[in-house]
Amino acid sequence: MRLTKSFLPTLKEVPADAQIASHRLMLRAGLIRQTASGIYAWLPAGLRVLRNIERIVREEQNAIGAQEVLMPTLQSADLWRQSGRYDAYGPEMLRIQDRHGRDMLYGPTNEEMITEIFGQSVKSYRELPQSLYHIQWKFRDERRPRFGVMRGREFLMKDAYSFDADYDGAVISYRKMMLAYLRTFQRLGVRAIPMRADTGPIGGELSHEFLILAPTGESTVYFDAALEQQDWLAQSVDFHDPESLGRFFKDVTTSYAATDEMHDETAWKSVPADRQREGRGIEVGHIFYFEDKYTRSMGVTVNGPDGAAFHPHMGSYGIGVSRLTGAIIEAHHDAQGIIWPESVAPFKAAVLNLKPGDAQVDEICNRFNQLGGDAVLLDDRDERAGVKFNDADLMGHPWQIIVGPRGAKEGRVELKNRRSGERLDLSVDEAIERVLL
Amino acid sequence: MRLTKSFLPTLKEVPADAQIASHRLMLRAGLIRQTASGIYAWLPAGLRVLRNIERIVREEQNAIGAQEVLMPTLQSADLWRQSGRYDAYGPEMLRIQDRHGRDMLYGPTNEEMITEIFGQSVKSYRELPQSLYHIQWKFRDERRPRFGVMRGREFLMKDAYSFDADYDGAVISYRKMMLAYLRTFQRLGVRAIPMRADTGPIGGELSHEFLILAPTGESTVYFDAALEQQDWLAQSVDFHDPESLGRFFKDVTTSYAATDEMHDETAWKSVPADRQREGRGIEVGHIFYFEDKYTRSMGVTVNGPDGAAFHPHMGSYGIGVSRLTGAIIEAHHDAQGIIWPESVAPFKAAVLNLKPGDAQVDEICNRFNQLGGDAVLLDDRDERAGVKFNDADLMGHPWQIIVGPRGAKEGRVELKNRRSGERLDLSVDEAIERVLL
Repeated sequence: MRLTKSFLPTLKEVPADAQIASHRLMLRAGLIRQTASGIYAWLPAGLRVLRNIERIVREEQNAIGAQEVLMPTLQSADLWRQSGRYDAYGPEMLRIQDRHGRDMLYGPTNEEMITEIFGQSVKSYRELPQSLYHIQWKFRDERRPRFGVMRGREFLMKDAYSFDADYDGAVISYRKMMLAYLRTFQRLGVRAIPMRADTGPIGGELSHEFLILAPTGESTVYFDAALEQQDWLAQSVDFHDPESLGRFFKDVTTSYAATDEMHDETAWKSVPADRQREGRGIEVGHIFYFEDKYTRSMGVTVNGPDGAAFHPHMGSYGIGVSRLTGAIIEAHHDAQGIIWPESVAPFKAAVLNLKPGDAQVDEICNRFNQLGGDAVLLDDRDERAGVKFNDADLMGHPWQIIVGPRGAKEGRVELKNRRSGERLDLSVDEAIERVLL
Repeated sequence: MRLTKSFLPTLKEVPADAQIASHRLMLRAGLIRQTASGIYAWLPAGLRVLRNIERIVREEQNAIGAQEVLMPTLQSADLWRQSGRYDAYGPEMLRIQDRHGRDMLYGPTNEEMITEIFGQSVKSYRELPQSLYHIQWKFRDERRPRFGVMRGREFLMKDAYSFDADYDGAVISYRKMMLAYLRTFQRLGVRAIPMRADTGPIGGELSHEFLILAPTGESTVYFDAALEQQDWLAQSVDFHDPESLGRFFKDVTTSYAATDEMHDETAWKSVPADRQREGRGIEVGHIFYFEDKYTRSMGVTVNGPDGAAFHPHMGSYGIGVSRLTGAIIEAHHDAQGIIWPESVAPFKAAVLNLKPGDAQVDEICNRFNQLGGDAVLLDDRDERAGVKFNDADLMGHPWQIIVGPRGAKEGRVELKNRRSGERLDLSVDEAIERVLL
């Protein structure tokens, strides 16, 4: 893809109100533009990242048998009156009246709606378990939006909801989601540590937040280094097998991990000192079991084997998709700009044409451009080399293929790895093999 | 994919308020559920159709060099005050106040916002032309929502916006979009006829609506049969070449086509009688050139070659993505249910297991299920054959692979084409070759 045919406007100045690195970098690298307080438009490079995150989240949800639906952004207030949350929810809920004066709201979450949809369609215990999810824009009217997409008002979230016949079933659904989450975050190139979270009046151990380590995180976190070293993608957990899931869950939850809210000094002391890790974390996911709270309040039942109606047990499972773009940058950047993990990068490589108009340089660049297709961004602007180097570092492409007139004469290019800074002098074919195949 | 592990709830009863076929069929086939007046949730089968439509729309927009962005659903009223539309827009605009009492709105369209984003980033004529589009949920507070997703309140739309230096450039952008639209609709399995539409005070010939022929259409349409017979996918229009685009545009616009609003009896009489077609149409797209209406009212300029600032010329280009699901069904159904074109079908084929538990039947079904992956729906329910036949016809899968115990013994299955009704007796390998390869 040619930069001169693209809409990839980088900014030279740092916007004054952007306090944290990800917010500054997302604006400077042309990923987003603010359109109102806490509300952003996603420009092409940002949208590519968002779609990459969505794709990985979706694949891992599908892998554990969750079914994708799409619920609307606006909801009727009556639905929330049934659960009692319409009045309970604070000013973060955006309340709306339509032209006929009917009370509506911009959904901050979807427990009520999914419970209603489930109740209309599922009548028998034989149709359980069910896990339904969607990836949709939500709105929370933050009093003081800040940190760019990390605490915006309109945000993209994946929220899943499980329905089971009983507690034992709900535990299995919960463990599947924990597995999917750990795999998802690892594929996104970040380490998200699951931490026990408050379950409120429901109690029990089935509430976990997932936090990415970053110096700008909102919470202090304490955890056993063992959790950082696990490779969740290599593990052969069989999600069809409750025992395999049980071992996995025990493995995850045995190691100490807590945010300051839930921190327990006594338990912490039992973690060997060389494995104690303390830092700051950004919440990017939350999984939570809440018994029959919504099926009961909304009067949703299914029939059991004995013909008697019962309220299914539910859990809900959120991932902050738009927030993750910021959180990934917080975890992966340097003074020059973003350092994208390959799995979410808007482009896998940038090809820097250092002398547009030079026949040999142009020819090599065009070859990369054609072979790379959508995965490669060709910087064919009539700009100084320094501008191109800076923009490529800022935008954080995992690879830079640098094509200058001297190397081109000998059919050679320079390949730079953005993360390590390593530079290799390669033939065109070697660079193609290394980056594009 | 196994039906028993899916969330594909069909309905037996026809909902009373559903007046047209597509609305009834979308509810019965479990594509959507109403969650509020004119607002729908998309269940898994419906979402698959929506995503297929989106994908084809996106591919054809990208093919003409348009860049995808994603603007938020909520907009600041101030933006619309700049263009003068905040007060001009009627009660269909959903007006909202946030917690600080600031006026906002749920975007019914995005001319203002895209003009602002463009203006922040593009400074020179050298960066023109630009075409930017997004596929995002919109809201229009219809007084009387009806016909399901065909006239809903929250709806998914692709809207593109072009920016050119002058009228001649705008004409080229407009023609590219017309080409993209004709290709898009043809790939979606429908014939959408472009019809001259009113340009209001701007005048000229650069406004076209695209209408799909269906008996339930809202407008009467008159057109030359020549327009129905064109194969836009086979045509080799070079969108980089203004002359090639010009010939294409002339070709399209020379043949008579008009809705009743724009109908001209004199011109109509000059169409040979055997080529006169009259019917009803559903509007699924609209392309429109409007000079510098928004760049002027919003004070957006770029610098020309002489250094003088000027207002770029714009056009806007909409496709009703969610509406298309209904419109495609209006054009493709019979008394038994939907008949999906393959390009948008939620599943390419259903495999009907007529005797779950029979080892040979199960084995053949599993083979199709494994090979077909996500494209195949295996009806493995413990239900009568009649229920499975009816549901498969209702859901409109292009192919049905019917596996019964008698055929299974000899390794044979029945393949039914949903559209033609044709049934073939085939070996398993022949059926695989026919449908899955």
